Amino acid sequence: MPAPDLAAVENVRARDRQLTKPPGALGRLEAIVEWLAAWQGRDRPRTDRIVVAVFAGNHGVVAQGVAAFPQAVTAQMVANFQNDGAAINQICKTFDLGLKVFELALEVPTRDFTEAAALEEADCAATMAYGMEAIAGGCDLLCIGEMGIGNTTVAAAICHALYGGAAEDWVGPGTGVDAEGLKRKASAVARGVSLHKEHLKDPLEVLRRLGGRELAAMAGAILGARTQNVPVLIDGYVATAAAAILHAADPKALDHCMAAHVSAEPAHRKALAKLGLAPILDLGMRLGEASGAALAAGVVKAAAATHNGMATFESAGVSGKEV
Amino acid sequence: MPAPDLAAVENVRARDRQLTKPPGALGRLEAIVEWLAAWQGRDRPRTDRIVVAVFAGNHGVVAQGVAAFPQAVTAQMVANFQNDGAAINQICKTFDLGLKVFELALEVPTRDFTEAAALEEADCAATMAYGMEAIAGGCDLLCIGEMGIGNTTVAAAICHALYGGAAEDWVGPGTGVDAEGLKRKASAVARGVSLHKEHLKDPLEVLRRLGGRELAAMAGAILGARTQNVPVLIDGYVATAAAAILHAADPKALDHCMAAHVSAEPAHRKALAKLGLAPILDLGMRLGEASGAALAAGVVKAAAATHNGMATFESAGVSGKEV
Repeated sequence: MPAPDLAAVENVRARDRQLTKPPGALGRLEAIVEWLAAWQGRDRPRTDRIVVAVFAGNHGVVAQGVAAFPQAVTAQMVANFQNDGAAINQICKTFDLGLKVFELALEVPTRDFTEAAALEEADCAATMAYGMEAIAGGCDLLCIGEMGIGNTTVAAAICHALYGGAAEDWVGPGTGVDAEGLKRKASAVARGVSLHKEHLKDPLEVLRRLGGRELAAMAGAILGARTQNVPVLIDGYVATAAAAILHAADPKALDHCMAAHVSAEPAHRKALAKLGLAPILDLGMRLGEASGAALAAGVVKAAAATHNGMATFESAGVSGKEV
Repeated sequence: MPAPDLAAVENVRARDRQLTKPPGALGRLEAIVEWLAAWQGRDRPRTDRIVVAVFAGNHGVVAQGVAAFPQAVTAQMVANFQNDGAAINQICKTFDLGLKVFELALEVPTRDFTEAAALEEADCAATMAYGMEAIAGGCDLLCIGEMGIGNTTVAAAICHALYGGAAEDWVGPGTGVDAEGLKRKASAVARGVSLHKEHLKDPLEVLRRLGGRELAAMAGAILGARTQNVPVLIDGYVATAAAAILHAADPKALDHCMAAHVSAEPAHRKALAKLGLAPILDLGMRLGEASGAALAAGVVKAAAATHNGMATFESAGVSGKEV
């Protein structure tokens, strides 16, 4: 896999020292610029073409009563994305981000993982490959997110399989299930992981047996972005679970990724800690549809703008540090 | 002082319940929309005209060796703002924010507060009134910040006067003083507060004796914004110290304000806690010049865009919650 461009990072640091500000004064924004430079392989990172990719899938496990909304909502929300009516559309317009929506065989939900493997091998592999389409045509930054009724249960099953603990550690209210629904989620996760337990050493089997198409596609998109010099902003808990599959296979697989935010879904913070990812934003969001990633993309644009646009001490006639 | 428009908040909440998302799923963004509505007095808050006001002042206390940069840098940075070369210029361009720079008699620094009151009464009052100019012509949101070599020492003196503790509790590296410089800062703050201690019961006397022109102007801008239905985003430690003066005089004086971010200056978090303000961003920034406020303004724009632009369950044909 491509390595970070350390020369670009050095050039960013050298320029940063000349900019009209105290060293380090832009905090995380400076780290973001170095990250963009490392993975774009550019001394002056670009943020003109940011793609927000939202992958939508349906899940057999909703038969277990794990979701607060009916499964039909997945397709209804895809239509809402296409008609410019969702939260993600408005955030993309605010920051001039390009939105791509990938509808993944919504009419054929995955199998209920408490009864069988969610996906066939061929389907899982093809969906990962399809996810790489997110960066077709190239872009400067990829934001990945999802829509799929029931998919926080899927994310919980993946995290439980990868990180152990109890099923309860990894489930949360999602779109808003009540206490009984939460018990059904934990039960489904526990039964699913138990059913497949002989096959969960291989992270790709975790994805195939417990995952879903939007998670496979997100994993593929993250992999594809790496080969095309595209840094990635990971959205919420479900996107993080997809990323966790790659990380379990190769701890360096997410080096080109940042966590856009930490969501209100309680297990998200734990999952990010397992991945060693520090979120850019912490705003109690829990919507999915890449909304947190798109919001963080605004911060990334501002970070790049400061680095690329600021005057130097010399050009601006500003005196340096004296003490 | 004008009260929040609770009917507008109720109307925002009623609309929010119809929007195509689970209730509460946008987290802090929803609270931001309610806040805009409350103080603008509008059911559909606007963020088209956001003003970023940067106030610049010079401080006699730099004679105590408290700053890492020479005093001339204040005027040099004002020129940099005017020539589009500073970080704040780039952030404003990223989010289409209007920048206003207020240069406050830079050639006449305030007096060294370790020796005398920083400002005359007339100067302090006139500068507060001048700060209200920030919202002349009207705007939807005001971001306030500052530039002034030495002014984290001034902020520390104000916080020490208002909140007690030790001088060391309220000083930090600012633009980057070393350990010796930090000791000089703490010493200056302790001596200043001690010199004026008989007069510090009145918050406006704290401002006049220990403050500076950019702090007086920021306090005036915050007050003026309240009367003109303009919500305010407060930038970093120095802006927060200016706000703290108003809060000490009237605990409701900052109800129309949000803290844009918590900076890396260690005392900022403590000062925000005293004011009961929860920062929107936490990115380790410590630049001043309203950079954190302008960055948070991007989040505010996105929040308003979601509320105003999203489709409702009915208009989008999306099913509501079923469980």
